[in-house]
Amino acid sequence: MDIKTFFNLSYGLYIIGSKDDERNAGCVVNTVTQATSKPVTLTVCINKDNFTNACIKKTKKFAVSILSEKTKETTIGIFGFSSSRDKDKFSGLPYGLTPSGMPYLKEGVTGYIQCRVIDFVENHTHTIFIAEAEEAENLSNEPPMTYAYYHKVIKGKTPKNASSYVEETKEAEAAGGSYKCSICNYEYPGSKEEFERLPDDYQCPICLAAKNMFAPS
Amino acid sequence: MDIKTFFNLSYGLYIIGSKDDERNAGCVVNTVTQATSKPVTLTVCINKDNFTNACIKKTKKFAVSILSEKTKETTIGIFGFSSSRDKDKFSGLPYGLTPSGMPYLKEGVTGYIQCRVIDFVENHTHTIFIAEAEEAENLSNEPPMTYAYYHKVIKGKTPKNASSYVEETKEAEAAGGSYKCSICNYEYPGSKEEFERLPDDYQCPICLAAKNMFAPS
Repeated sequence: MDIKTFFNLSYGLYIIGSKDDERNAGCVVNTVTQATSKPVTLTVCINKDNFTNACIKKTKKFAVSILSEKTKETTIGIFGFSSSRDKDKFSGLPYGLTPSGMPYLKEGVTGYIQCRVIDFVENHTHTIFIAEAEEAENLSNEPPMTYAYYHKVIKGKTPKNASSYVEETKEAEAAGGSYKCSICNYEYPGSKEEFERLPDDYQCPICLAAKNMFAPS
Repeated sequence: MDIKTFFNLSYGLYIIGSKDDERNAGCVVNTVTQATSKPVTLTVCINKDNFTNACIKKTKKFAVSILSEKTKETTIGIFGFSSSRDKDKFSGLPYGLTPSGMPYLKEGVTGYIQCRVIDFVENHTHTIFIAEAEEAENLSNEPPMTYAYYHKVIKGKTPKNASSYVEETKEAEAAGGSYKCSICNYEYPGSKEEFERLPDDYQCPICLAAKNMFAPS
């Protein structure tokens, strides 16, 4: 089985927002699919280890923010490489609440969809949520961010909890010669010496991890 | 609810191939999603009215052909706008069989994935199949066809059985001033007079319908 075959499946990139009581929870996924048109239902696969998964099972509600090409790298980094257990990922970002109270991003998105879970199926590491769209609003005319654009143009990394995660091989690691973020695998584009000369308050441009979270690759 | 919001969800385009006993069956979908990576499982939504849906339920097997930008319009037309009840859509196209005997296209694709159904969920008009990937082969380095590319560059139409189908409004129809294919809604790009002067053996470039299947729009 040639794992590269799966790299040609095409996706968008989305922030799923839900609630833990009063607190916002959210994660980034590439697995939102319209399943039917009358009524509009969607499927979305979310890792069972993601805090947002448990929140959706409790509330039966979530919002999909459809990311645009204007989404900042750090937004994807925050939602992809940290946990809602530890912090409110929406805090500090411009966000709104849907009529049902679910958090969605207001900038760097094409719009949001408010969803109500009608069923879910456990499938190995992930849950497949089936949800009805209750509300949807267009927020910009920016082109939607595709997964291909994220990887090719932004050189974005894939979180370990993603449906499409592939472990990097030792060879790929050996090919680099710099420092790599231990949280999101972002590789510093300069030499080891250049990395070491960076100020102590340097942060990973993808996931905002501190400089001491980087290790030689 | 603004229906245009859903137009910004991103997808690829795929031919699903299965078998009715010895005969090939297939349809075009935009709903293939990788659901997990260990093991690799996929979800795909297929309209209950599609003959291929019944074939997959019977065989528990199907192949995904990942369409590339080199896919001919007529290939999508044949798979999207005719039924496997009436004809073998693979016949006349270069196709192969996966190790489990499922038909896949050999040209205009990036590769194929052989799948075995592990579960399915009925969801309104569509069935959500959950399947394990048993085999996958890369067949070209052509860029994958995205749903956006199909609509914007090829000006492709959406089959009525698609998860993302939207009925065309009367206004949209009134905006045209030519002839339109009654099978796939393809609109002839010239004037009514130009269409009428076309030879009698003219066929719809999308779904190969005969000239007399066109009506003034």
